[in-house]
Amino acid sequence: MGLFSKDIKTMDDLFVHTLQDIYYAEKQIHKSLPKMIEKANDPQLKQGLEAHRGETQGHIQRLEQVFKQHGAEVKAVNCPAIDGILEEADDLVGEVEDKQVTDAAIIAAAQAVEHYEITRYGTLTAWAKQLGREDCAALLQQNLDEEFAADSKLTKLAESGVNRKAA
Amino acid sequence: MGLFSKDIKTMDDLFVHTLQDIYYAEKQIHKSLPKMIEKANDPQLKQGLEAHRGETQGHIQRLEQVFKQHGAEVKAVNCPAIDGILEEADDLVGEVEDKQVTDAAIIAAAQAVEHYEITRYGTLTAWAKQLGREDCAALLQQNLDEEFAADSKLTKLAESGVNRKAA
Repeated sequence: MGLFSKDIKTMDDLFVHTLQDIYYAEKQIHKSLPKMIEKANDPQLKQGLEAHRGETQGHIQRLEQVFKQHGAEVKAVNCPAIDGILEEADDLVGEVEDKQVTDAAIIAAAQAVEHYEITRYGTLTAWAKQLGREDCAALLQQNLDEEFAADSKLTKLAESGVNRKAA
Repeated sequence: MGLFSKDIKTMDDLFVHTLQDIYYAEKQIHKSLPKMIEKANDPQLKQGLEAHRGETQGHIQRLEQVFKQHGAEVKAVNCPAIDGILEEADDLVGEVEDKQVTDAAIIAAAQAVEHYEITRYGTLTAWAKQLGREDCAALLQQNLDEEFAADSKLTKLAESGVNRKAA
């Protein structure tokens, strides 16, 4: 059980609650990636998603370090946002038959996931700095940078031909 | 009733389905903004959200134009992603008592919404171009540019003091 939103009184509470939110999200993303990898057809896309699954494991570990450095218990709180994003991805990717259209749908779904992470890590990094936790901010910034890079790789992959082949 | 994901066979179907998804999302965002505006305390934040509600109305109209130009019926399809993002925003913002912590939570929630829209409009603009629909791409790009600008204004607002006051 995480910190409930009704217990949020200070910026510190809000920071810890949002950490618990992205911690849950990263774990759900890690669980959902194998299905996306299995469905992906383009070898570069498959490989990119596999590499990102490894990075996601690293993000989970960095978050655990942030919890510890901040003196907070390592906990997850339910995150309806990532549940919705992953439900939509699963629904869409699972139903499309054409291989190239499937790959385009996977890229779009993966970019929606990346953008959720980018916004959360952007917010958390800023809050950590405002709370004087430069040590936590540095770790969160590393996750943020890797999410930006992953999103940018997906854009290049889409532009390089996956979508064009499908159209 | 929109295009169901099981009916998606081509890039054109995927494009129309995703248009229906963001059309639903924009309408839900338009509905949810008054509550956020009411809860916001900082006058600049309140004003910024009000201005964005007007922009959102414009985005809905541009999407209707894209549907028409593309020869597709104007329809919405359920979007669990935006439902989850807005549910989380509502839960968090509704429960926090401190005014400045509330404002920080509102900015974070609004940026999560912006990032969802940015990823969808980024994808849709790329797909429209690949489908040879430069006319639709130009309209979608306008929505994308306005979402980017809204996100950037929220970041500046957060950095300029709303979060700092709360910390």
